[in-house]
Amino acid sequence: MVDAGAHRAHDDFMDHTTGQKTKNIGILLFDGMEELDAVGPWEVLAAWADQFPEDGWAVQLISRDGEPVRCAKGMVISPMCSIDTAPDLEVLVHPGGDGTLPLMSDQAHLEWLRGQRAKVPLMTSVCTGSLVYAAAGLLEGRPATTWWGALDTLAETDPTIELRTSDRFVDDGDVVTASGVSAGIDMALHLVVRLAGESRAKDVRRYIQYDPQPPV
Amino acid sequence: MVDAGAHRAHDDFMDHTTGQKTKNIGILLFDGMEELDAVGPWEVLAAWADQFPEDGWAVQLISRDGEPVRCAKGMVISPMCSIDTAPDLEVLVHPGGDGTLPLMSDQAHLEWLRGQRAKVPLMTSVCTGSLVYAAAGLLEGRPATTWWGALDTLAETDPTIELRTSDRFVDDGDVVTASGVSAGIDMALHLVVRLAGESRAKDVRRYIQYDPQPPV
Repeated sequence: MVDAGAHRAHDDFMDHTTGQKTKNIGILLFDGMEELDAVGPWEVLAAWADQFPEDGWAVQLISRDGEPVRCAKGMVISPMCSIDTAPDLEVLVHPGGDGTLPLMSDQAHLEWLRGQRAKVPLMTSVCTGSLVYAAAGLLEGRPATTWWGALDTLAETDPTIELRTSDRFVDDGDVVTASGVSAGIDMALHLVVRLAGESRAKDVRRYIQYDPQPPV
Repeated sequence: MVDAGAHRAHDDFMDHTTGQKTKNIGILLFDGMEELDAVGPWEVLAAWADQFPEDGWAVQLISRDGEPVRCAKGMVISPMCSIDTAPDLEVLVHPGGDGTLPLMSDQAHLEWLRGQRAKVPLMTSVCTGSLVYAAAGLLEGRPATTWWGALDTLAETDPTIELRTSDRFVDDGDVVTASGVSAGIDMALHLVVRLAGESRAKDVRRYIQYDPQPPV
């Protein structure tokens, strides 16, 4: 019914009205990724990019090999590109989930992350995504957080990290780490504040009717 | 990399420990569906089913023809089954999104929904999913809600509906309608309360660390 690879390919073009090149946010997809870790930020950021094209942003879903991934709870999501065909990114979002465990000792992945760190201005994570950043050495001496159930593992992975155990997300300038799963929604709204201002972030919040009322 | 159709096929088996048959929740996927409308409830409900298998529930992602769908913001998600191969459901979740507009006049879809209504005990919707329920006549004379931007359309689609313009979700017994996009998360937690009790819903809330702190 759909051709997964064809849509939104890069948007890597010059806007001839403004003379500005589209800026890209990449969300990494991988097997065992927790679904909402990725789709929460996706909803916020893609709604922003889609509803306000004048801001000049696009969001890319990226898997290592460009093939679909099977998430932690069984949902299968198709990416738009691979790490080799992805455009240069202004922001990377690394979700968490059980699939981060193998990634923490996957030298090719950690090397790719260090390469991204060298050229992506803003590296962000959701949930146990920060464990992978820690394993890659990206959080050395920095304040950071993760899913509540993984705080000990984060501390063990890099004891130089200043654990922020009760923060919803931690903005350390060029690295932002969020706490568990649903925290990616709040972090993504914060990214919209940083990248486009508070008024725009309020627009996006209203669009997704984000007036949470947990019933328990 | 993955075989989308093979995973979690139905779980339509007898648990020989408890003698109970697995109960199924179906989340409908369709082209133009708003991503978080489906993935918010999916995260809550699939995390519940996965973390607490003793409760005996499974969650099915269902598309009409069993093929992947392209969502409103461009994400491509694969279902587990088609409407013809799906197991009998205890709960149906109908997401919203721009893709509801063609569904509101799609007689085959509306007829399928009426057929589901006749046999599914609990019919639920997120966002503009309720517009489709209204078009199928399922909300006649009932209290209901929808995404804030579609309240007028809901009233026009069925003037007998008692609009609940400020409710996060409306529980009318065998029909539950949620407001826009992110409200599906709150509604899904409410469904866990109804189906497994408040304590279990708190477990799931904690698992997804749903302590929302919108930054704007």
